[in-house]
Amino acid sequence: MMRQAGRYLPEYRAIREKADFLTLCKTPELAAEVTLQPVRIVGVDAAILFADILLPLEAMGAELVFAKGDGPTFPHPVRTRQDVDRLHVPDVEATLGYVFDALRLVRRELDGRVPVIGFGGTPWTLAAYLVEGAGSKDYSHLLAWSYEDPAGLAVLLDRIADTSIAYLKGQIAAGAQALQLFDTWGGLLDLERWRALALPPLRKIADAIRGHVPLIYYVNGGGHLLEGMRDLPVDVLSVDWRIPLGKVRQVVGDRVLQGNFDPAALLGPIPEIERRVAALLEEGKGGGHIVNLGHGILPRTPVDHAKAFVDAVKRSGG
Amino acid sequence: MMRQAGRYLPEYRAIREKADFLTLCKTPELAAEVTLQPVRIVGVDAAILFADILLPLEAMGAELVFAKGDGPTFPHPVRTRQDVDRLHVPDVEATLGYVFDALRLVRRELDGRVPVIGFGGTPWTLAAYLVEGAGSKDYSHLLAWSYEDPAGLAVLLDRIADTSIAYLKGQIAAGAQALQLFDTWGGLLDLERWRALALPPLRKIADAIRGHVPLIYYVNGGGHLLEGMRDLPVDVLSVDWRIPLGKVRQVVGDRVLQGNFDPAALLGPIPEIERRVAALLEEGKGGGHIVNLGHGILPRTPVDHAKAFVDAVKRSGG
Repeated sequence: MMRQAGRYLPEYRAIREKADFLTLCKTPELAAEVTLQPVRIVGVDAAILFADILLPLEAMGAELVFAKGDGPTFPHPVRTRQDVDRLHVPDVEATLGYVFDALRLVRRELDGRVPVIGFGGTPWTLAAYLVEGAGSKDYSHLLAWSYEDPAGLAVLLDRIADTSIAYLKGQIAAGAQALQLFDTWGGLLDLERWRALALPPLRKIADAIRGHVPLIYYVNGGGHLLEGMRDLPVDVLSVDWRIPLGKVRQVVGDRVLQGNFDPAALLGPIPEIERRVAALLEEGKGGGHIVNLGHGILPRTPVDHAKAFVDAVKRSGG
Repeated sequence: MMRQAGRYLPEYRAIREKADFLTLCKTPELAAEVTLQPVRIVGVDAAILFADILLPLEAMGAELVFAKGDGPTFPHPVRTRQDVDRLHVPDVEATLGYVFDALRLVRRELDGRVPVIGFGGTPWTLAAYLVEGAGSKDYSHLLAWSYEDPAGLAVLLDRIADTSIAYLKGQIAAGAQALQLFDTWGGLLDLERWRALALPPLRKIADAIRGHVPLIYYVNGGGHLLEGMRDLPVDVLSVDWRIPLGKVRQVVGDRVLQGNFDPAALLGPIPEIERRVAALLEEGKGGGHIVNLGHGILPRTPVDHAKAFVDAVKRSGG
């Protein structure tokens, strides 16, 4: 289940009571423990590294603050070429070694029972937070920059791509057996602008990772971008719950698909969850299909509903 | 320009300094003045009624609060059938008469120079705010209800539809020459669930308004819902900037289309705005096309950029 650790698990909340979010991310023993919780409690068949997608931006020199109750913020948003000059491609071992340490602990603990998936954000999505300085309703600073000085923004995106390549290769060296790239905000762009702005740094990463481990690309609200994904050399395309898998296949051909169970359906009754899992499995036939949620698991999800989802998939042999 | 009044106009901000948001909505002279500002200042060729889409919910009996700096909130969210029982279809003249008064003032002031467009939210979108109690990242209370008890939620949606019909007919009686329905959150649903949940109350409204004035339906992030719109008897489909108009026509046939200039493009340089207007006009050929933004105008939009957009369309004869 996508981004499967989290507040829906009482065991996660217990750890969060003792450690703030950044401390949790930066303490390998705690991050490893939280990574393993869904495997032990819910029975998923892969562990997904617990980390925040914004950590590499902090490593690049951007101050990152998680204030209690608010989301993450960058007190000094990056909005000009001069701002970009303050950021560098970091030594990832020195700055993000805690992530690699957590991965090694997870691999050791799992001892081969299930694989471990590492992850990161796409340059466009990381830039969205960094330019805006926080979550946003309209991402107007990012979009303004993209119209005013697309070449300047491209410098930022390329620098994030180079950082991401080092970060993801570090995850592979530490034991990640697949990698997932999250593109939360790619869907803000129309296809032409996604191709011009978001795709080049993304393809740079995909080209660098290709041949090492399978790479999964997830885009949220990106049904209108499917044609563009033909040009993206990733092994698995992960889509949200709004696009039927059959339609995705029509456009992207016989790529392996991941998804796309509506995470909100886990809030409904268990028989309805089981019915929907069966329908999704039917829809996924005719090509490679990794069953997954179509977006992150919701904090209000009952644990036994998450289990029912995993069990229904397993019972089917999926 | 969609939802064209607003914070980007210094004249609007001047009025907002004297009156809080609800006072502005409920004082016909002020609401009329704000409605007229974009016509006078930017030169748009229709006036769009200034009102908040949530006002009919207050008229139904839901307490509505606009706290300074936050968005609108409902301190008592509606999440059960018992909660729905607290809401009624109101006497719209008694509860929303201030909207009709504002419309009459606008009609009188404009004296036929440009038409006046009234508007409202769709039942699904109004319910989204009412059930959640505020804006939300995931609308998980709404979605949970939609999976747990769709029939109960349908009672709420139907009651909102009945209220909307009375409210929109009141706008027509007060002089609205067209009506636009905003569906900000319809795009949360996949096509099957949109058809089951959002479409029935929406079609009820469309059937009631049909033959009175042209009805425009706008959905945000709804590229995956286009097939469903074939079953919606509205005159004009308004779409966001992420779907090329040519693609929309392929699916919905020869309906009049409205849209879909990226509102963020108004933050970019004027020559780029002019280039994009020309491209949009070219794309819109081959069927009825009303040039518009693909979403609400952004507060940071420079007024001269909004003017440049309108002028470029007018120069083309569009």
